[in-house]
Amino acid sequence: MSIDLVTALRTIVGDGGVLDAAELGKRSAGTYRFDTLKAGALVRPSSTQQVSDILRWCHANGVSVVTHGGLTGLVHGADADPGEVILSLERMRAIEDIDPQQRTATVQAGVVLQTLQEEVDRHDLAFPLDLGARGSATLGGNAATNAGGNRVIRYGMTRDMILGLEVVLADGTVLSSLNTLIKNNAGYDLKQLFVGSEGTLGVITRLVLRLREKPLATNMALVGFDSFDAVAKFLKHIDRSLGGTLSAFEVMWQSFYRLVTTAPAKGRPPISQDHAYYVLVESQGADQELDTRRFNAAMEAAHEAGLVANAAIAQSEQDCRAFWALRDDVGQVLQGGMPVVFDISLPIAAMEGYADTLRTTLASEIGEHRLWIFGHLGDGNLHVVVQVKPMDYLALRPKIEALVYRPLAACNGSVSAEHGIGLEKKPYLCVSRSPAEIALMRTLKAALDPKGILNPGKIFDRHPAAGAD
Amino acid sequence: MSIDLVTALRTIVGDGGVLDAAELGKRSAGTYRFDTLKAGALVRPSSTQQVSDILRWCHANGVSVVTHGGLTGLVHGADADPGEVILSLERMRAIEDIDPQQRTATVQAGVVLQTLQEEVDRHDLAFPLDLGARGSATLGGNAATNAGGNRVIRYGMTRDMILGLEVVLADGTVLSSLNTLIKNNAGYDLKQLFVGSEGTLGVITRLVLRLREKPLATNMALVGFDSFDAVAKFLKHIDRSLGGTLSAFEVMWQSFYRLVTTAPAKGRPPISQDHAYYVLVESQGADQELDTRRFNAAMEAAHEAGLVANAAIAQSEQDCRAFWALRDDVGQVLQGGMPVVFDISLPIAAMEGYADTLRTTLASEIGEHRLWIFGHLGDGNLHVVVQVKPMDYLALRPKIEALVYRPLAACNGSVSAEHGIGLEKKPYLCVSRSPAEIALMRTLKAALDPKGILNPGKIFDRHPAAGAD
Repeated sequence: MSIDLVTALRTIVGDGGVLDAAELGKRSAGTYRFDTLKAGALVRPSSTQQVSDILRWCHANGVSVVTHGGLTGLVHGADADPGEVILSLERMRAIEDIDPQQRTATVQAGVVLQTLQEEVDRHDLAFPLDLGARGSATLGGNAATNAGGNRVIRYGMTRDMILGLEVVLADGTVLSSLNTLIKNNAGYDLKQLFVGSEGTLGVITRLVLRLREKPLATNMALVGFDSFDAVAKFLKHIDRSLGGTLSAFEVMWQSFYRLVTTAPAKGRPPISQDHAYYVLVESQGADQELDTRRFNAAMEAAHEAGLVANAAIAQSEQDCRAFWALRDDVGQVLQGGMPVVFDISLPIAAMEGYADTLRTTLASEIGEHRLWIFGHLGDGNLHVVVQVKPMDYLALRPKIEALVYRPLAACNGSVSAEHGIGLEKKPYLCVSRSPAEIALMRTLKAALDPKGILNPGKIFDRHPAAGAD
Repeated sequence: MSIDLVTALRTIVGDGGVLDAAELGKRSAGTYRFDTLKAGALVRPSSTQQVSDILRWCHANGVSVVTHGGLTGLVHGADADPGEVILSLERMRAIEDIDPQQRTATVQAGVVLQTLQEEVDRHDLAFPLDLGARGSATLGGNAATNAGGNRVIRYGMTRDMILGLEVVLADGTVLSSLNTLIKNNAGYDLKQLFVGSEGTLGVITRLVLRLREKPLATNMALVGFDSFDAVAKFLKHIDRSLGGTLSAFEVMWQSFYRLVTTAPAKGRPPISQDHAYYVLVESQGADQELDTRRFNAAMEAAHEAGLVANAAIAQSEQDCRAFWALRDDVGQVLQGGMPVVFDISLPIAAMEGYADTLRTTLASEIGEHRLWIFGHLGDGNLHVVVQVKPMDYLALRPKIEALVYRPLAACNGSVSAEHGIGLEKKPYLCVSRSPAEIALMRTLKAALDPKGILNPGKIFDRHPAAGAD
């Protein structure tokens, strides 16, 4: 099987375009992984036509295909089995066009996010998607997983930045839907199907992305609060006061703030470590002088209204970078134990109660552990990290998952805010989605990929009878 | 047939909930229509359960269902045949919840847009979708057609304002996907299927809508330009200078500006009628004093850069209303003839050439006519109106449609920016969509509505062989 596979793929893309199982064993399974890739072969097409030829052959021969971008996913959404083919977009890295008037970029799916950010910056434009994995995540992967990140409150998810897609369907059909228009109601908006479908409905090969004028001014503050109610009120206050320029609203519970502002972490606390909550607030505008006046006035009004316990306002770009570095120093959760990392969303009104309950249930059911909560509060998105002793990790992980996920059903929360489902969250999809919703997902899968060759078993099981969903 | 239909539906919703064909003959076919409704019956459910019961019965009996919102559509997307049932959401008009913290509204599909706008305003919030038909268009209809309107450049289309939907599928299944979260990547985002599907994939019964903090400051100007190039440059300049607060960028070609500023129109020209193009530019922010300084500085810089030929800056709310009244006085196109009205989108770089070509081809092929162009330039959306003598209308209309639509293919334009396809634009769908795209639309239709009972024949024909697409 494996030899036929490699030979067949080499006739499509040439010898150098295919790695066999042995060569795969030398490649890392991803940025956050300790193991190596597993699959029957890895194929690296250099054109949409080659992607189409590969899929046509795989479709005819019943071979499954797992598409790879930058391998920065966190939910085992790109794992492959020994009989499957990994289709990597690593040779399709061309930025084909940047149109400063239409404010669009047309790119191949393998372009790395940061590469595009830097290229559009040279045109005085911005692609506002931004996330920690910017240096290796690809735009095709961002689209396939509907990536979120730091500025969703202002610019939306990846979905909101995509104007057009070229997708190769399961049978090799090229669906070219490279729309460049903000408004296009000519029939169903097909690209929406593929955004966030985690490679299960088609292979994204090219994208048309919406660009923005580059922001010319930034303001930031790190704010301490003594109650969650004050945090929630401050969000409304600052969003309204900044009149459309609020670009980030990141929260850190006290334990996370202490973690990233205490050695061995490099960061130091800009304000006291004794507050219950900390918020990093950022605005992006056009005029540094006027924006600073507005920002400071809004902070002052919040202080006068008694919302804010303490605040440090960034006085320089260096201050801004230092504030972001605290929020981004997520690697500290690896100190002294093994972290179980979660990405959930829930209504703001439910957050405090959810966190309190979680603290209680973890204490009573898990024993020794550490809990950190932080995230994109403006979008309802929290990252929850529960750290346990390495030797307890495997045994405790399912128990911790249940404690984190189960209570989300009651408050209409989601088991995945921005990371997707992959294999990891599949058993918990039913917490956030009803049987009717999952049935319709299956209907779509069956309609677009009747043979089930595209990233099979991800999001939901291949056969309804086989799985927990 | 008709009697059985009426009787069966009355057992579901009660006697008063059903109008028969004779009663339908007394109801207008819509806001912009001169005829009356035609169908086998009109049924008015008052709950999702009733909608489900109706669809289950229709599905079992092979009866087609055409869903009605506010009947403000412009593409014959809600027309029904004598054997079909009209399902009107007019009894489902409850605003169920407004959550000022989560900034969401949960509404039944029959709620009128303006009703929601006014209600959220009382909570110091805004629902930023806005369009001329606000007083009768329903939110279910806005969603089903992915309505656009005046502030898309800032807030996006209706799609971008929808967080969750409850939809009844063709067989009566209730798909409850009433998500309130900005971030939710738990499997496919099913609501995207139904937004903009014009009632062909399901019946939207409830919506969760994203609200915004209410803007506290508005600035506006009416600006004259002597070249299209200057208009395009001004768009980039003002968008960047306003730092995220640009909320409308509406263009009027000279002939339209003259039409709405000359008697019998009520409006008078705020600036000379001799410029080639006029732009209405609006910003919405939070601080009137600072925003006005920024707005005026941006206008001054544009003037110094030689972009602007002439400008009137609004000094009061009354001025703002007067400027909008000019742009909105579309009814003037009814003066002295019959208008053929178009809603297209195309890249900004192609607009001037497109308009020039259209002027030339109309002059050589249509004979006596008037041409007006205006629209939401910031979104690439133009409305084109060609007025001819009433007696020539029917003969000339297909010819005019061909002249307007055909050239869009070469510039990647769309035959529908915001109005949808319905019946009217069906012959031209192929201008903007490839055979592969239309085939995938049919695949989705077959998967979700295998019996083809939902708004059949809209967007594309029932059977591939039967139509021009």
